[in-house]
Amino acid sequence: MDTPIRQQMEALVHRKQLEITQALESLDTVKFQTDTWARGNDGGGGTSMVIQNGDTFEKGGVNVSVVYGKLTPQAVSAMRDNHKNLELTHNEGTKFFACGLSMVIHPHNPHAPTTHLNYRYFETWNADGSPQAWWFGGGADLTPSYLYEEDAEHFHTLHKRALDKHDKNLYPKFKKWCDDYFYIAHREEMRGIGGIFFDDFDDRPATDILKIVEDCFDAFIPSYIPIVARRKDTPYTPEQKKWQAIRRGRYVEFNLIYDRGTQFGLRTPGSRIESILMSLPEHASWLYNHHPEQGTPEAKLLEATHHPKNWAKE
Amino acid sequence: MDTPIRQQMEALVHRKQLEITQALESLDTVKFQTDTWARGNDGGGGTSMVIQNGDTFEKGGVNVSVVYGKLTPQAVSAMRDNHKNLELTHNEGTKFFACGLSMVIHPHNPHAPTTHLNYRYFETWNADGSPQAWWFGGGADLTPSYLYEEDAEHFHTLHKRALDKHDKNLYPKFKKWCDDYFYIAHREEMRGIGGIFFDDFDDRPATDILKIVEDCFDAFIPSYIPIVARRKDTPYTPEQKKWQAIRRGRYVEFNLIYDRGTQFGLRTPGSRIESILMSLPEHASWLYNHHPEQGTPEAKLLEATHHPKNWAKE
Repeated sequence: MDTPIRQQMEALVHRKQLEITQALESLDTVKFQTDTWARGNDGGGGTSMVIQNGDTFEKGGVNVSVVYGKLTPQAVSAMRDNHKNLELTHNEGTKFFACGLSMVIHPHNPHAPTTHLNYRYFETWNADGSPQAWWFGGGADLTPSYLYEEDAEHFHTLHKRALDKHDKNLYPKFKKWCDDYFYIAHREEMRGIGGIFFDDFDDRPATDILKIVEDCFDAFIPSYIPIVARRKDTPYTPEQKKWQAIRRGRYVEFNLIYDRGTQFGLRTPGSRIESILMSLPEHASWLYNHHPEQGTPEAKLLEATHHPKNWAKE
Repeated sequence: MDTPIRQQMEALVHRKQLEITQALESLDTVKFQTDTWARGNDGGGGTSMVIQNGDTFEKGGVNVSVVYGKLTPQAVSAMRDNHKNLELTHNEGTKFFACGLSMVIHPHNPHAPTTHLNYRYFETWNADGSPQAWWFGGGADLTPSYLYEEDAEHFHTLHKRALDKHDKNLYPKFKKWCDDYFYIAHREEMRGIGGIFFDDFDDRPATDILKIVEDCFDAFIPSYIPIVARRKDTPYTPEQKKWQAIRRGRYVEFNLIYDRGTQFGLRTPGSRIESILMSLPEHASWLYNHHPEQGTPEAKLLEATHHPKNWAKE
């Protein structure tokens, strides 16, 4: 019998946690610190790897979690974008398994973009043990404080290439999903310049989707590391550092107000707050009624967050 | 005929906006900047007074808004803690009037506490013009980064005195309500060391409640100004400033995740985002898994946010 998908995904996220943290460490003078946690009375736990106060990375975390147990159907449905296949009414004991890697990296230099990546897999069963549903979700995106078009193009192009290998319909769909999902409605702006995002991905064999996820994972390191490598030593002014903190304030706004994973995590008993809020930057700032002057690099970035653009080449 | 309560409340909040900003300015080298805003197609508007980058005050705003028009019953009910008297089902045109003053002041010195104050009045009418409900809400509270027990006692005692003049049952009730409302559930800690908070206040004649609100307003200046006066020049270290930013991160967490007014405002079309988010500090910080060492002043503050205490003397 083949290894179950959930075990393959678990092995994948653990392997990627090491590969990604090693690739990031190659750009910095400090190392990631690792700590593990368990869910107490509930099943599962995780491994958080955190980098703080580096020369390159101000703050970042790469978290793997593998959790399972019983949840109310309402709680399970909150983890999913739509609710197909989930029996929400006459079911008192949905069992679930979830594993994933989630990561946010905030570089120190305001010219180097913040990035977020998350790939996850869910399975649910009925109380009698029969399978109910499974799906993949995730994506990766870029949030710069200053827009370098070649960085946006590079990041998008490599992710498009990874998806195009499997199905040319995926990138356009996941790119739009990312723009739509990471949207700060009260600001009428996107969190950054996008990337890819998907949820409820179950429309083909799980082994095929796992391969797609693996290829997206593989696309991340070459899509992000070279960007940081060429921006991390760019000279910057105190004013540019302040602008970065203002943009990180917007990041905080999105994550605390809109992000479904954060909302779900903060309201779930037994979840680990520190791992959920690992995504928040070391520094964020709010100024009253702050608007960059027209024609400045700050205004150019804002403009890009108001109008989705097709960054991918090819 | 007597002046309607809504006009009296409107006059009160405008008068208090000037008194409070003048009292605060007496402690600083910079002045409040005033700007007014209108709700566009909807009725009403407001006056925002903002202080930034002062020697004493890092960031603060005192905002008066007077808004009216039609709202869905669901929207009106979201403004209220419980929904009594609001006809939520067979009613398509609840008219409302709301006016209030809301204020958050973040001093620069980590030994001087942040404060929040808000007093507001609502009225609703049925589509035929008949009165439906009215109520007052509001309160004032203190959020220090370092606990000075005499400051907490002073702030609470003056607010207790203002309420005791009218009804000795009010302070204990409003003090507990404040502790319960400004609670960061995912951290299992209170936002600060409390004060008073109430909503749906309509259990006695409106003129009596207006007088209570006025007395609470009057209690604010002597309860807060002397605290800032004696803390604003206290020497502090860079580490103490960092701790202040971490505590302000918690302030951001409460306001963006739990505060009903913020949630309501951010999701209401036509509301003014800058005035709603005026409450956020200039600087906030998040460190992974940060816990102050036992026995330190930082741990003492945290301890106070975990265990409500009866601060008022008398």
